[in-house]
Amino acid sequence: MSVSTDPTLRSGLRIAIVGATGAVGQVALQILADRKWPADRLVLMASARSAGKEIAYLGRKLKIVEGRADAFAGIDVAFISATTAVSRELAPVLARQGVLVIDDSGAFRMQADVPLVVPEVNGKDVLGHRGIISIPNCTTTPLVMVLAALRSLAPLRRVTVATYQAVSGTGAAAVRELDEQNAAIVEGRDTARSVYPHRIAYNLLPQVDRFLDDGYTAEEHKMTNETRKILHEPALPLSSTCVRVPVRISHSEAVHVELARPVDPAEARRVLASFPGIRVVDDPANSDYPMPDQAAGKDPVLVGRIRRDSSHPDGLVLWLSCDNLRKGAALNAMQILDEAVRLGALKPRAAVN
Amino acid sequence: MSVSTDPTLRSGLRIAIVGATGAVGQVALQILADRKWPADRLVLMASARSAGKEIAYLGRKLKIVEGRADAFAGIDVAFISATTAVSRELAPVLARQGVLVIDDSGAFRMQADVPLVVPEVNGKDVLGHRGIISIPNCTTTPLVMVLAALRSLAPLRRVTVATYQAVSGTGAAAVRELDEQNAAIVEGRDTARSVYPHRIAYNLLPQVDRFLDDGYTAEEHKMTNETRKILHEPALPLSSTCVRVPVRISHSEAVHVELARPVDPAEARRVLASFPGIRVVDDPANSDYPMPDQAAGKDPVLVGRIRRDSSHPDGLVLWLSCDNLRKGAALNAMQILDEAVRLGALKPRAAVN
Repeated sequence: MSVSTDPTLRSGLRIAIVGATGAVGQVALQILADRKWPADRLVLMASARSAGKEIAYLGRKLKIVEGRADAFAGIDVAFISATTAVSRELAPVLARQGVLVIDDSGAFRMQADVPLVVPEVNGKDVLGHRGIISIPNCTTTPLVMVLAALRSLAPLRRVTVATYQAVSGTGAAAVRELDEQNAAIVEGRDTARSVYPHRIAYNLLPQVDRFLDDGYTAEEHKMTNETRKILHEPALPLSSTCVRVPVRISHSEAVHVELARPVDPAEARRVLASFPGIRVVDDPANSDYPMPDQAAGKDPVLVGRIRRDSSHPDGLVLWLSCDNLRKGAALNAMQILDEAVRLGALKPRAAVN
Repeated sequence: MSVSTDPTLRSGLRIAIVGATGAVGQVALQILADRKWPADRLVLMASARSAGKEIAYLGRKLKIVEGRADAFAGIDVAFISATTAVSRELAPVLARQGVLVIDDSGAFRMQADVPLVVPEVNGKDVLGHRGIISIPNCTTTPLVMVLAALRSLAPLRRVTVATYQAVSGTGAAAVRELDEQNAAIVEGRDTARSVYPHRIAYNLLPQVDRFLDDGYTAEEHKMTNETRKILHEPALPLSSTCVRVPVRISHSEAVHVELARPVDPAEARRVLASFPGIRVVDDPANSDYPMPDQAAGKDPVLVGRIRRDSSHPDGLVLWLSCDNLRKGAALNAMQILDEAVRLGALKPRAAVN
């Protein structure tokens, strides 16, 4: 067997996954397994409820450990994808212990001393970390990749988005709820619900996360604030409507972008196609366009329906689908680790207080 | 029993429904039954395949007649909701026979001598008919109602829309396809498809109708062209992305509107709430907002999530859901007839050639 050319794999690092039983944790495990990440350099953690259970990994059984601050001896990198409360409690403590925390929650994303990173867009930002690096919300990641690609053609002027978000973004329980409701409806039974405030099967919820005073949801605010931070464009005008749809995996977005000059769709298609992590799927004549079921389980952000905005001379319209658990979360986290290894940024400059 | 105060009901008119077995035809029948429209002033028509079958109506059985041009003797009004080909063949012939045709297809909507009418918005346009009045596409109708309400505050400058369209817009076969695919998926079986080019269950299709050369679909063009015609604003900038979602009934839309001045959401809420046919459902604190399952089977267009557009000083953002079979089709048709009766416009000025 040849020696791996993957610097992260050769690094000898030990990784902990906190939230290993969750929807994102499971995909993280899958990605590590695909890389043949050695089982003895992997620790799976979850809540006390799951501690002691075993998870299959590369032909072995890994026992789940309770994710307590004192369980991280010998761990170099912790990927946390649990609840925001878990992230708030664990991340600063681990950072002080010298563990690099890659955090999936919204707890630290907008903190000035925490880089918020999509490696294809602002990979160098990992250099500024003080022990915690955040990954963006799963709707932000594909959007900033598209915007970064288009910005190479002309400055961005304004962005509006309508999302179509899969239930796995809420977690594994929401996927079960959708499945159970669908089963009940096709069998003519009454539906039950516990995760969402309304039925999601055969329905749409124009609410993701809680509402704020301005009528936007926290999800919609995240999209604006995180996009601005990642693109280093603190005043970029952006407005979105975030909607939950009865789909298991992959978020989709209808995006209107205004640029500083008219951009031909062919130009846009070219820069999008050559942007790392994006695959252009745009052959309408053959009904070929991004769809959630096609993006699910795949790495790239799928972008298509690229056309002029018929309502604005400098506008483009497009449609994207992206696996919210993969590039929207676990894959992006792994790529952040790769970037930190590559740039020699594993040791924080100084721990977060 | 008291005499009806409904002038259309008292008119003595005889109505034919062409496409009585279809998704829209069935809703039209329901609306007529709710009005206690007399069975002897109603003729149900469909294709030769359905001719002879019986449909229950107000405790009677009505036999379906084949919808041929020579079957309309004694009919005053024909509501056609079949295929575009059927509309193209029948409507001009009937108009020449003096039948008022209210047509649900895209065949005549953009024809200059055919009024395209949403009674709450441009009811008086029925006066210009020459035998055919078209009803708009089911995504256009709720949008123009919202735009007409907002226009009372300030001129419209630009509109962008992302739609979330129910499968019943395609027809009853598409509803069965969604149900069958959902059943197969929850039971772990393979799905089959025949109506759509891709699976619709647990998925999204960013294609409604066929693609045109500019990258937009015919559905997206309809939305622009029909909105301009109904609002009498032939240059209104409008761009949309039309998406099919796994929902049975009710189309939803995320709408960005730019006006000629900043409009306070409270002002917008007021004019929307007082606009006929619109119900404002906008209480985010109680997770109360328009949803397709709440709009289905109801008359009003539900509008909510009304807020400032954080990306434009003169912009508003909102979300709507509307029963695509009811106000999106059959109800609007019935209201056009009411308007024609009320305005004494039943007889055309001169038949369409």
